[in-house]
Amino acid sequence: MADERVIEFFFDVGSPYSYLAATQIGGIGGRTGAEVRWRPFLLGGVFKDTGNEMPARVPSKARYMLADLARWGEHYGVPIRVPPSRFPLSTLAAQRALTSVALSRPEKVPDFALGLFRAYWVDDRDVSQPDVVSDVAGACGLDGPAVLAASGQQETKDALRRWTGEAVERGAFGAPSIFVGDSLYWGNDRLDLLERNLQATA
Amino acid sequence: MADERVIEFFFDVGSPYSYLAATQIGGIGGRTGAEVRWRPFLLGGVFKDTGNEMPARVPSKARYMLADLARWGEHYGVPIRVPPSRFPLSTLAAQRALTSVALSRPEKVPDFALGLFRAYWVDDRDVSQPDVVSDVAGACGLDGPAVLAASGQQETKDALRRWTGEAVERGAFGAPSIFVGDSLYWGNDRLDLLERNLQATA
Repeated sequence: MADERVIEFFFDVGSPYSYLAATQIGGIGGRTGAEVRWRPFLLGGVFKDTGNEMPARVPSKARYMLADLARWGEHYGVPIRVPPSRFPLSTLAAQRALTSVALSRPEKVPDFALGLFRAYWVDDRDVSQPDVVSDVAGACGLDGPAVLAASGQQETKDALRRWTGEAVERGAFGAPSIFVGDSLYWGNDRLDLLERNLQATA
Repeated sequence: MADERVIEFFFDVGSPYSYLAATQIGGIGGRTGAEVRWRPFLLGGVFKDTGNEMPARVPSKARYMLADLARWGEHYGVPIRVPPSRFPLSTLAAQRALTSVALSRPEKVPDFALGLFRAYWVDDRDVSQPDVVSDVAGACGLDGPAVLAASGQQETKDALRRWTGEAVERGAFGAPSIFVGDSLYWGNDRLDLLERNLQATA
C-alpha cells in the first residue's frame, strides 16, 4: 500500500484555503513521514466539470469567509491579506507555469507555489499576469522567461487539463483536494483529521 | 459584553452537520462557562433568502459528505447512519415543534432536539411526519399531541419565520450557524476555534 504514505495535494493559487493548506502540508509530511506531492490543477475546470460553484458566489458566505480566513491565518501564525484587490482572477498563467515546473523540476514546485500564493494572498500582486508569474519564478531560483515559454507548450497545457480531470475523476469538487490513496480530504480544515489518520496507519 | 458569554446555536434537524454540532455544543458550554441557547431555524428558508444551495446538490460533494460525516462521527464517538433513507426531507413539522417548545419550555429544547436528531440521523426515522415528531416529544417527557397543537399556532409559525430571518440578517447562510455576539461560526468543524476563542476571552 505505497499510496497510503503519499499525500497528493491538488491546489490552485486562486484559492485562499489552498494557500492556508499549502503553509501546513509540508509540516504534516515531515511529522508523519509521508511524501507530499504538490499537484497543480485548475479550480475553474473542477467547478465546470462537477457543477460546483465558487463559495464566494453567495454574498453572506463571501463576507463570512473573510473573517474565517483571517482566523485561520491567526491560528496558523501565517500572514493573509483579504480580500485581495482582484478576486476572482484567472490563474491559468500561474497554474500552467506550475505545471511546466512540475514536469521539468518537480522538487521546485513547493517553493514556487508558496511564492505565488504569497504574491497573491499576502502581497496582493496580480498573479494573473505572466510577468508577475515570471518574477516570482525568478525569485525562487527558476528561469522566469524559460518557465513562461514552457508554460505555453502543448505538453504543459495538456498536463494541466489531464491532472484537473484526474482530480475530478477521483472525486474532487473544490480546492484544496488532498488524496491519500482513494481517501479525499477537502479543505485546510480537514488537515488535522488527515494527520491523525496518517499517524494511525504509520 | 454579556453577549460574549452566550453561544447561540441555530440548527435544523435536517442538517447532518447540525446533528454533529448538537452532540458537542453542550460540552463546549460546560467547559467554557458560556450559556448555550438552542435556536431552531429553517435551513430551507436560509437557502432561499441568501441564494445559497444545499451542499449535496453536487453529486461528488454529496459522496464526499458521506465519508466526511462518518469520519466526524468516529472522531466524536457518536453514532451516525448515512445516508438516511429519506434525504432531503421537510423539517417544517420538526422545526415548528421545536419552536413551540422554545417558546413555552426552552429548557427542554436540547433534549427534544437531540431526540429528533437521533431519530433522523441514527434511527433513520421519517421526522417529516408529525406522528414521529409527537412520539419523540413524548419520549423526552413532553406532551406530544400538545406540542403538535402548539406547532400549528400562528405564533409558532411566526416565531420560526422571525428567527430564520434574524439568523440571515446576522449573516447566516447555512447550518449550523453559531453566534457569539456578532461573530459567526459556521459548521461543526469550527467548534474547536469557537472553544479556543471563548477560552481566550474567559
